[in-house]
Amino acid sequence: MRIYFSASITGGRGQAHIYPAIIKHLRQYGQVLTEFVADQTYTTQGEQQLTPKAIYRRDIDYIDQCDVLVAEVTVPSFGVGVEVARAGMQGKPVLALYQPAQGRRLSAMIAGDPNVTVAEYRTIEDAKAAVERFFDGLALDATKL
Amino acid sequence: MRIYFSASITGGRGQAHIYPAIIKHLRQYGQVLTEFVADQTYTTQGEQQLTPKAIYRRDIDYIDQCDVLVAEVTVPSFGVGVEVARAGMQGKPVLALYQPAQGRRLSAMIAGDPNVTVAEYRTIEDAKAAVERFFDGLALDATKL
Repeated sequence: MRIYFSASITGGRGQAHIYPAIIKHLRQYGQVLTEFVADQTYTTQGEQQLTPKAIYRRDIDYIDQCDVLVAEVTVPSFGVGVEVARAGMQGKPVLALYQPAQGRRLSAMIAGDPNVTVAEYRTIEDAKAAVERFFDGLALDATKL
Repeated sequence: MRIYFSASITGGRGQAHIYPAIIKHLRQYGQVLTEFVADQTYTTQGEQQLTPKAIYRRDIDYIDQCDVLVAEVTVPSFGVGVEVARAGMQGKPVLALYQPAQGRRLSAMIAGDPNVTVAEYRTIEDAKAAVERFFDGLALDATKL
């Protein structure tokens, strides 16, 4: 199973501290193609060593290769939106992990997408449990085919 | 010409004051399908009178109907990312209007997308000029077909 982990970089790094724990948990289910997202040295300036075209090409290639996409959707991000849409148009299952915050609402373009499973979490343990439920559901669907 | 105007709602309303002037200018080139984006009463709570599923369905239908997409990409937004990706996968031209801010970089998933024309602006006059160049370019491409 090839897993695309999608999360905000230039949109904001407010949740970046939680990405490594999610990725570590995802490794139980397959290969995580995008571990760089959790690099704690990255700021909203993004990946300085690559051009935007090179980043775009790499990430689109990873989307096209992945079997499933798991996104952290607490911090608004163009890239996460692009990736969720592309994976969805390719018929790939998407899990969106969301930490609710006062005064905000998750975008309807994520929350209202019938291809996306949204799971709210407060602690990393909640997020891990949501990941587990999601992959258990996929395994169950596979046995029904 | 049916124009989809895409801009942040739940991602943040920091640039919302500029959306009406962009939409007014876009009307010179065709029908703007999404004038509601500029509603100054909307906050990051989004459109309260519709469910996320209804908003998603409406906006996806508008994307599928439009001929061209113009996005304001200063404020990070999942929805704008979804819409730019979907229009691009349908081969529709996309203009992204961006007001540069210190300490931020435009997402590579927008800036590095070969289907997207990025235009930086500081004033509304710059933005209008970028819209004009974009539609003039489309008209020129059409005469070459």
